[in-house]
Amino acid sequence: MKNQDHLSSFARRLRPNAIRRLSHLINRPGMITFAGGVPSPETFPTEEIAEIAFRLVRERGAEVLQYGVTRGNRNLIEQICGYMSGRSMKVLPEEMILTSGSQQGLDLVSRVLIEPGDLVLVELPSYIGGICALHNAGAELVGVQMAEDGLEPSSIQSQIESLAAGGRRVKALYTIPNFQNPSGITLSAKKRAALLELAARYDIFILEDDPYGELYFDSEQPSPAPIKSLDEEGRVVYFGSFSKVLAPGLRTAWIVADPEIATRIEMAKEAADLCSSMLDQAIVSECYRQNMLQGRIAQLRAFYSVRCRAMLDALEAHAPAGAHWTRPTGGLFVWLEAQAGIAATELLSRAVEQEGVAFVPGRPFFVDERKEDNTLRLAFSKETPERIATGIERLCTLLKK
Amino acid sequence: MKNQDHLSSFARRLRPNAIRRLSHLINRPGMITFAGGVPSPETFPTEEIAEIAFRLVRERGAEVLQYGVTRGNRNLIEQICGYMSGRSMKVLPEEMILTSGSQQGLDLVSRVLIEPGDLVLVELPSYIGGICALHNAGAELVGVQMAEDGLEPSSIQSQIESLAAGGRRVKALYTIPNFQNPSGITLSAKKRAALLELAARYDIFILEDDPYGELYFDSEQPSPAPIKSLDEEGRVVYFGSFSKVLAPGLRTAWIVADPEIATRIEMAKEAADLCSSMLDQAIVSECYRQNMLQGRIAQLRAFYSVRCRAMLDALEAHAPAGAHWTRPTGGLFVWLEAQAGIAATELLSRAVEQEGVAFVPGRPFFVDERKEDNTLRLAFSKETPERIATGIERLCTLLKK
Repeated sequence: MKNQDHLSSFARRLRPNAIRRLSHLINRPGMITFAGGVPSPETFPTEEIAEIAFRLVRERGAEVLQYGVTRGNRNLIEQICGYMSGRSMKVLPEEMILTSGSQQGLDLVSRVLIEPGDLVLVELPSYIGGICALHNAGAELVGVQMAEDGLEPSSIQSQIESLAAGGRRVKALYTIPNFQNPSGITLSAKKRAALLELAARYDIFILEDDPYGELYFDSEQPSPAPIKSLDEEGRVVYFGSFSKVLAPGLRTAWIVADPEIATRIEMAKEAADLCSSMLDQAIVSECYRQNMLQGRIAQLRAFYSVRCRAMLDALEAHAPAGAHWTRPTGGLFVWLEAQAGIAATELLSRAVEQEGVAFVPGRPFFVDERKEDNTLRLAFSKETPERIATGIERLCTLLKK
Repeated sequence: MKNQDHLSSFARRLRPNAIRRLSHLINRPGMITFAGGVPSPETFPTEEIAEIAFRLVRERGAEVLQYGVTRGNRNLIEQICGYMSGRSMKVLPEEMILTSGSQQGLDLVSRVLIEPGDLVLVELPSYIGGICALHNAGAELVGVQMAEDGLEPSSIQSQIESLAAGGRRVKALYTIPNFQNPSGITLSAKKRAALLELAARYDIFILEDDPYGELYFDSEQPSPAPIKSLDEEGRVVYFGSFSKVLAPGLRTAWIVADPEIATRIEMAKEAADLCSSMLDQAIVSECYRQNMLQGRIAQLRAFYSVRCRAMLDALEAHAPAGAHWTRPTGGLFVWLEAQAGIAATELLSRAVEQEGVAFVPGRPFFVDERKEDNTLRLAFSKETPERIATGIERLCTLLKK
């Protein structure tokens, strides 16, 4: 039987995630790696979570080992509503759905909102998982440039109008406004308001993906308030996650959407997995109850700040002429644009083989299928400051050759 | 903003799960409930799982709290391959994907195989979660009758041919061959072979959903070998699950499919949630390693066998003339066809209000939108034998009125 003849058009549309396909190269042991955009396992509160898991299963096994409601653990939903009001977002439980990581949120929301052929604006560059979810739902993705302070409302407006002149309406804009993956760029507060106005004028949804918002380095300068905090008409779908502030293996994240859309997302999730891991959700809720998260997040900010500083200092000291890079004020990533003519995809093999250094080539993060391949995503989350300095120096030596 | 105008056709197609919508009625405290098709929490090995969770997080936190590969925990995949070979299925790791419960498997497989408008044959009655996943992918569902020993290959053949005469080709058949949810019916070994032949002749996929296969009551008479065990050309997609033999809250299940289809399922899962709960998967793998599962399953068989017996005895003693019911040899469900004229949906409110007894009306399990509403699904998993006897007696009193 020829199975490829039996696949759905959805299955034919699927593309592998370009980063995960590089894992054989970038996951070698001993490597200095700037590749994986994952939190450092050193930051996981393993002792506390071990205790919590033990007690939850022992004392509430009939609940945490059983099926649960699709919307998610009710206590956790209320805890997150409380947390969000501290970030200037008034959210009701009926606007919230817990998901198995934000990736599930992106998939469900794409399925519920996107009709195949719909136009969706996406940052250049953008997060590959978000691109995949939108693409799989059949979206036609249109790239939009970013400045140092994020998307440019005026250039988005011209883009929307020129698409409209060709009879094409934009359905949604997908943005990661804080310490973006992969670029590290943050959208300024002023531009957030302008973007929302633009979205209202052209009747566009904003998909606001915010896994890094709490990871700002200067405790005096928190991330600007989310676009969602300005939204009064349910135009913004907000994605929050515990993956970067607690532990990604406990697949727990949330969506906030207009109640009517939330109801559809719930129905889609019901058929997608009935409910998320009950133990994971209960663990996260208990971490909240014990007030573990706030203190922990302050430590994380200091932890990643030092690593980012080490990377920026090393780039300052060793980067070749003609290279440019972002100076993130939070998150996990620096984005390096090397000199013209550099081919990052080829460079990766040499960096791995000759220098024992791994990174992710930037091209797969662009939806405009560009030829240029001179960008690199450098995650500073995994390595110690010392190894970051060594790795960047080696990488720069290679870039200079 | 009018959000309903912005929904995708997928979102408009979504239907709520009829059983989960009854939960306000059937989840009242104190009720004798035959409603929820869920394992009894008394059977959860909470002490053992609490210990396992504690040690896993403490000793392997960097792994179980981190992101993992989309295919799933490699040790667990190999353990399941070993288990399946004991059930006459030779399975290679590249044919397997771990999923967040079988519901995720049903959703992913439906998306990968079903093109909107494709015909899929579904048992009358069938599992609502399977029906929802297929429906959401756009399948047109065609009901097929079952006999006491399951689907009738000859009548399926006539159905396929009459559809073909109308220019319609059948893409797949969805079946739960062992102790079916909701009917309790088991497909005979002989018919399994005939069904597979039929599928080969008409080039149809078989989606074999097998969550209950291990829950046979007579240890001398295991369930017949799965259809998958006869499959030599990758025509059967097999769904296995730990929900009924260990604990459903640990959302861990698996799919076996032809390697090419498995690759597509993996790509779809990558964009659907990146990976399943790492802690849940590691817990299940550790239960395997400690040989907990086999001994436990023997206990479960005895446990549910006693409850099924209590329900069948009570029906024998009290059922009104004209009522018929199945005599399952395993699983969690008895299916009751009451006298003509009974309206089970109305009966439910009265049973709950007057008798404190809950069940699930059978009609939502049928894809043929029948008018008759005289069937009931009676789960014997949740209540003690004494309460089962009391509940059935009360229900039968009501049926006789």
